[in-house]
Amino acid sequence: MNKVIETILNHRSIRHFADKPLTDEQIKTIVSCAQAAATSSFIQAYSIIGVKDKKKKKQLAELAGNQEYVAVNGHFFVFCADLYRHTLIGQQEQKSVIPSLESTEKFMVALIDTALAAQNAAIAAESIGLGICYIGGLRNHLEEVKAILKTPERVIPLFGLAVGYPTKVTGKKPRLPFEHIYHEEEYEQNQQEYLQQLRQYDDVISSYYHERTNGTRQDRWTEQMANMLTRQNRMYMKDFVQKNKLNLR
Amino acid sequence: MNKVIETILNHRSIRHFADKPLTDEQIKTIVSCAQAAATSSFIQAYSIIGVKDKKKKKQLAELAGNQEYVAVNGHFFVFCADLYRHTLIGQQEQKSVIPSLESTEKFMVALIDTALAAQNAAIAAESIGLGICYIGGLRNHLEEVKAILKTPERVIPLFGLAVGYPTKVTGKKPRLPFEHIYHEEEYEQNQQEYLQQLRQYDDVISSYYHERTNGTRQDRWTEQMANMLTRQNRMYMKDFVQKNKLNLR
Repeated sequence: MNKVIETILNHRSIRHFADKPLTDEQIKTIVSCAQAAATSSFIQAYSIIGVKDKKKKKQLAELAGNQEYVAVNGHFFVFCADLYRHTLIGQQEQKSVIPSLESTEKFMVALIDTALAAQNAAIAAESIGLGICYIGGLRNHLEEVKAILKTPERVIPLFGLAVGYPTKVTGKKPRLPFEHIYHEEEYEQNQQEYLQQLRQYDDVISSYYHERTNGTRQDRWTEQMANMLTRQNRMYMKDFVQKNKLNLR
Repeated sequence: MNKVIETILNHRSIRHFADKPLTDEQIKTIVSCAQAAATSSFIQAYSIIGVKDKKKKKQLAELAGNQEYVAVNGHFFVFCADLYRHTLIGQQEQKSVIPSLESTEKFMVALIDTALAAQNAAIAAESIGLGICYIGGLRNHLEEVKAILKTPERVIPLFGLAVGYPTKVTGKKPRLPFEHIYHEEEYEQNQQEYLQQLRQYDDVISSYYHERTNGTRQDRWTEQMANMLTRQNRMYMKDFVQKNKLNLR
């Protein structure tokens, strides 16, 4: 196993960081790695906002559901899907780009581009001994997050990436079985087998929680998922995105 | 610079592969790396389909716009956003998960999850000397792609990842200036500066093409983008996604 694969397989989310800032060089390396990712038709449809200001980080932490590690870390990156610059380009080049920019297709492209870049950033950070945690909680209150970060139209802050020196490292959570995620030639349609795999995985996850919590927790994964999905989180998202002139047609 | 950062910064899309299949072990390593990526609320909302069958690869190559390297490579992965398993889970657990699964938020989560996993796969493949190319062209004809891969409802084939032994390696394309992508504390709103950066980048890209094509091409980036966006590609996407019961509310 080479160093790259070792780094990738060793990933775990870190939720306790030292209050020690990253250097400008570290930030530059992480962002350059993000930019090196592939991008659909070379569109580069994302921006990254780095937040250092403690007051601002505290505000974002509260909006993200009082997550301490959003406030205390080495650096807080916000990854934004960004089709604002392409709006400007359309004006400059006097071309009719708006129908494209408002399409679901380009919304998808911007999301994918942003995530590819973010994962490069995450791996790069981990490779230099830093820990990371993605912060989807930023999407709890995007109006407020947009106001704090002053993002223009056609820019959606998608998630944060807290990066820093880990002070507490947790275990790796087992993933879905390989056979459940990976299919050959076509999508596996055998529902009985599929459900059987989920039951086996439920046992794995139950044991994982059981061991980790000295028996106080033993949730099944399917139970977690069903409960999480019943809650109907962030149902304002469609309106929010469309108000920002994306995913409209 | 460590091996991980070196691998990430050395990325370029490979469009010429030897007709030599990956081993099962290589495939397993690549998929395991994909699965090691972070996933929103542990939802694991993606699946990967590996295509080996030559006839099927040829069909996909044609649908993706006659891209030879979709047919001839070491392995062809299709990364799919997947909320089908969560539909089954809802049935099994007898919980009302459908409104969540049909939300724009969960559609975004599935796209982001899939892309994070894919980028891990890409980096892992590159780290063992393989080349990769993302194939967004699969989205040209998703009805046909879905039929070939037999994906159920709430599964969207997002893009392909052609992986293999490179037979021709091209140069790295320069990315947007660091200052244009990365902002501190808040999104840069100085439009004049922003446009100035784009003009500088246009010069960089023009020179890149000029050198690479012995003077026959010297497109500016903003010109490329404006032309690409004027074409209104894949405007069927919104209907297609909604027909597959995602991004509805």
